[in-house]
Amino acid sequence: MAGGHGTRFWPRSRRRIPKQLLSITGKHTLLQETVRRLLPLFSWRRVLIVTNREHAPEVRRQLPRLPADHILIEPAGRNTAPCIALAAEWVALRAPAALMVVVPADHMIKDVQRFRRTVTSACRLAAAKDCLVTLGVQPTRPETGYGYIERGDAIRGGAASPAHAASWVRRFHEKPSARVAARYLSSRRYLWNSGMFVWKTNVFQEALKLCLPHVHRALAGVWRSDRAVAGRLRRIYAKLPSTSVDVGVMQPITAMHAPAPRLAVVPADFDWNDVGSWIALPEICGCDATGNATVGKLLSIDAHDSIVYAPERLVALVGVGDVIVVDSADALLICARDRAQDVRKVTHLLKERGWHRYL
Amino acid sequence: MAGGHGTRFWPRSRRRIPKQLLSITGKHTLLQETVRRLLPLFSWRRVLIVTNREHAPEVRRQLPRLPADHILIEPAGRNTAPCIALAAEWVALRAPAALMVVVPADHMIKDVQRFRRTVTSACRLAAAKDCLVTLGVQPTRPETGYGYIERGDAIRGGAASPAHAASWVRRFHEKPSARVAARYLSSRRYLWNSGMFVWKTNVFQEALKLCLPHVHRALAGVWRSDRAVAGRLRRIYAKLPSTSVDVGVMQPITAMHAPAPRLAVVPADFDWNDVGSWIALPEICGCDATGNATVGKLLSIDAHDSIVYAPERLVALVGVGDVIVVDSADALLICARDRAQDVRKVTHLLKERGWHRYL
Repeated sequence: MAGGHGTRFWPRSRRRIPKQLLSITGKHTLLQETVRRLLPLFSWRRVLIVTNREHAPEVRRQLPRLPADHILIEPAGRNTAPCIALAAEWVALRAPAALMVVVPADHMIKDVQRFRRTVTSACRLAAAKDCLVTLGVQPTRPETGYGYIERGDAIRGGAASPAHAASWVRRFHEKPSARVAARYLSSRRYLWNSGMFVWKTNVFQEALKLCLPHVHRALAGVWRSDRAVAGRLRRIYAKLPSTSVDVGVMQPITAMHAPAPRLAVVPADFDWNDVGSWIALPEICGCDATGNATVGKLLSIDAHDSIVYAPERLVALVGVGDVIVVDSADALLICARDRAQDVRKVTHLLKERGWHRYL
Repeated sequence: MAGGHGTRFWPRSRRRIPKQLLSITGKHTLLQETVRRLLPLFSWRRVLIVTNREHAPEVRRQLPRLPADHILIEPAGRNTAPCIALAAEWVALRAPAALMVVVPADHMIKDVQRFRRTVTSACRLAAAKDCLVTLGVQPTRPETGYGYIERGDAIRGGAASPAHAASWVRRFHEKPSARVAARYLSSRRYLWNSGMFVWKTNVFQEALKLCLPHVHRALAGVWRSDRAVAGRLRRIYAKLPSTSVDVGVMQPITAMHAPAPRLAVVPADFDWNDVGSWIALPEICGCDATGNATVGKLLSIDAHDSIVYAPERLVALVGVGDVIVVDSADALLICARDRAQDVRKVTHLLKERGWHRYL
């Protein structure tokens, strides 16, 4: 899934280059990292990218080995449920019961070996039990910005290793309050919802038919004819609701009884960062002794707890703390650390003022 | 006087382009503005610039109409007393009693008409009374960063207009405490020391001979022979103390009795800014309703009381206040507003780290 716009990463992310097409710390972009992370598990011929018209050329440029017709273009953003449903239709046409590993293209995972082992466990479980599998990340702090997965009964015989001891999911919980998040953290029954899923295509489609029948119906057979698929998709998407797969499928499925497919969770034992805003930088690249996280060259005089992203320019901080500084060729962001979520407001304001060259 | 280094204006000021050779708000540099301010009072043939070897080519570039030999090069910086003494020697060789108007090249004065009228008054006074004349700026706030001039008896018949009612100077006072500065402000007997002077060359040389005889002796006749003056100056300057004309000449002269030349002050009724640090920007270019002073394009979301100098790049401030942001091609400064004086530490640290390209 590589269709996001990532306005919280302005001024590095722009209309044409959203977060997933940027490299944050390394030489590869988040999209490239995402594919590289999975590739030893299957070949390029099994990689499928869903994006939009605007970003498709850059996706193609960044993934030259991807078969040309493995980029699906959504005519509009409708959140993850339609996106995954569209991909499932494409896969089903070729192999109706093929395993799908569904991942966002803008997450950062450093421990690649553990990631691959977890995905392999999840694949085994999805194949053996005909269930939907979500990857749940062990919480390390009482985060209020994520959804949580509540574990229910353990699944016997489903795990490749004790680290990946799978459970049935009792419930999905939306972003909690700080008090509730603290309780989740201490109970150890709750995992972060990573937004990564594994299932057999037909099992997902069955769940979709039950939970979002109109989405399933609208997209059914859309890839059968090659003629004018773009125009058809445009008309279909115009009427589709914007729905996440979490809220639209995962939450309701946990409340259903057989013969609905069940939802399982495999605990992820790798580091995971959804790179939701510039606040993620210290987790990704670490901090110096005074709490400054830097990509680029920093000269600090009594600066502390700041986040500096300026690969192409020297930054000198004098006597400031808790600020986010992000440099780019034509624009510069300086943001209070506790206002990282408001960076998206910058892009709204740019539109309002008609300063489109900075969008 | 155009020899300063202005490390407090980093990253705009650099080793090769110090403050006086920069344009801060307009299309002209501070040096060019300084000359343009004075020019209607006399011709290019009466302009003399003292600078150093490093900056001389840029001075020449910025003032193409200046006669080639009207740039005096000091081999080292020794503060204002040797600088003025060197220029006085040069003038004395051509016209021993010529009036000198001595001004720093890095001050900002917007009300050019009043400036010219004040200088004209000071020239009349210096010519009529054979005294040293300093321009004293009427304080508008209890500033602790300036020296103060305490006025004594009024000078009868010395002023061209009541606005320029001159006085003899009772005393020079160094930078005061906040409490003392408040007292100075309310008493109205004190004026800011602007560092601008007017006198007949021979009168200044007489004062120099009395107050800094070694400086006078060292430089006496230095311009008589053209042969190897650079080498001679280097040897002389190596032994000269670093002394300001304020501390070295003006302060002691007020304590002397006849036949020493007396020191007078003409009150300046124009706006005046010594552009001592980035803090000067709001005074020069004004503020918006939330207290932000900007040169360039600013997008503010709940930002306040900040100073932004970024003529070539858009700056977005989100939720920050009281910061100074200065952009340049290869380096960026973000400084707490109350730490503006510490910007010079950046250049020290750059030297220490060997990052010479940013100096």
